[in-house]
Amino acid sequence: MRRFTFFLVAVATAGLAVLIGPARGHADGQSAPYVTDIPNGYRDWQWISSAHEAGNLNSLGAVLGNDVAIRAFRAGKLPFPDGTIIAALHYRNVPSEENNKVFGQAQSFVPGAPTNIQFMVKDSTKYAATGGWGFGHFADGKPGDATFMKSCFPCHEKAKGSDLVFTRYAP
Amino acid sequence: MRRFTFFLVAVATAGLAVLIGPARGHADGQSAPYVTDIPNGYRDWQWISSAHEAGNLNSLGAVLGNDVAIRAFRAGKLPFPDGTIIAALHYRNVPSEENNKVFGQAQSFVPGAPTNIQFMVKDSTKYAATGGWGFGHFADGKPGDATFMKSCFPCHEKAKGSDLVFTRYAP
Repeated sequence: MRRFTFFLVAVATAGLAVLIGPARGHADGQSAPYVTDIPNGYRDWQWISSAHEAGNLNSLGAVLGNDVAIRAFRAGKLPFPDGTIIAALHYRNVPSEENNKVFGQAQSFVPGAPTNIQFMVKDSTKYAATGGWGFGHFADGKPGDATFMKSCFPCHEKAKGSDLVFTRYAP
Repeated sequence: MRRFTFFLVAVATAGLAVLIGPARGHADGQSAPYVTDIPNGYRDWQWISSAHEAGNLNSLGAVLGNDVAIRAFRAGKLPFPDGTIIAALHYRNVPSEENNKVFGQAQSFVPGAPTNIQFMVKDSTKYAATGGWGFGHFADGKPGDATFMKSCFPCHEKAKGSDLVFTRYAP
């Protein structure tokens, strides 16, 4: 969500109407490497937290982590070790008509259509130019293009105090 | 979230100011058995979906499932088999000041203080009187009392078409 938002804010600033391009390369001549392959098995990972972005983004989703990520979050140790992968699964925030009928008012919101999946992959060597993190963004299985991916690091860099990770572990 | 809401709506209707009582028994003379022990390891389970309740509930959280639950959700087969356990982890829906500073507006919401954890445990014999499901509600580790727990089944019964489960699996 936070990553999602940061991406979208950056994209909106750039005035791009379409978020996803056909580029599949690891990097272009001007940008650092980014994640171009969806990590295997991410949907089976454990839950770190949920998040909701109100307003135009209108997003609801979850942040999951691989075993390395979960151990690091629970231990509360920074920086995250190499091998950490964090996945942010984003969906449209939609009302649940079924629930709202029961409540008699529009109060329940659930994940609707998937919008994108984003990843942070820690590899302090490969991604040295972007704080040790590789950033990934996929919509319909296709990675964001190089121009789009350039917007990730500058935003995440603002979270230096937590090793560029905005999400906190929900107990 | 949905379960949380149903509980709270029922409780509000009953005019109860305090949700959690000291009762630890399996049932009283008038109600069906309910879940009085927190299932082991639920925080390690896989993610089924997230949910947000707006309005007075102001809740944000996640629904997790044990292996039996996850397999059943993914297969889309009903009814859920005995052994299914579904956990709903609820938190206050709070703004993320950290994120909002970056965005320049209040749009990011994250889980705040935990409010309660709820469970649905499928055992078609033990919980035959409540559609095969045992319902559990825990706040600060303490189960809801018998009066409170009576409100679960009547609401969940409205979801007969999905074996009393309101949550859908997020892809």
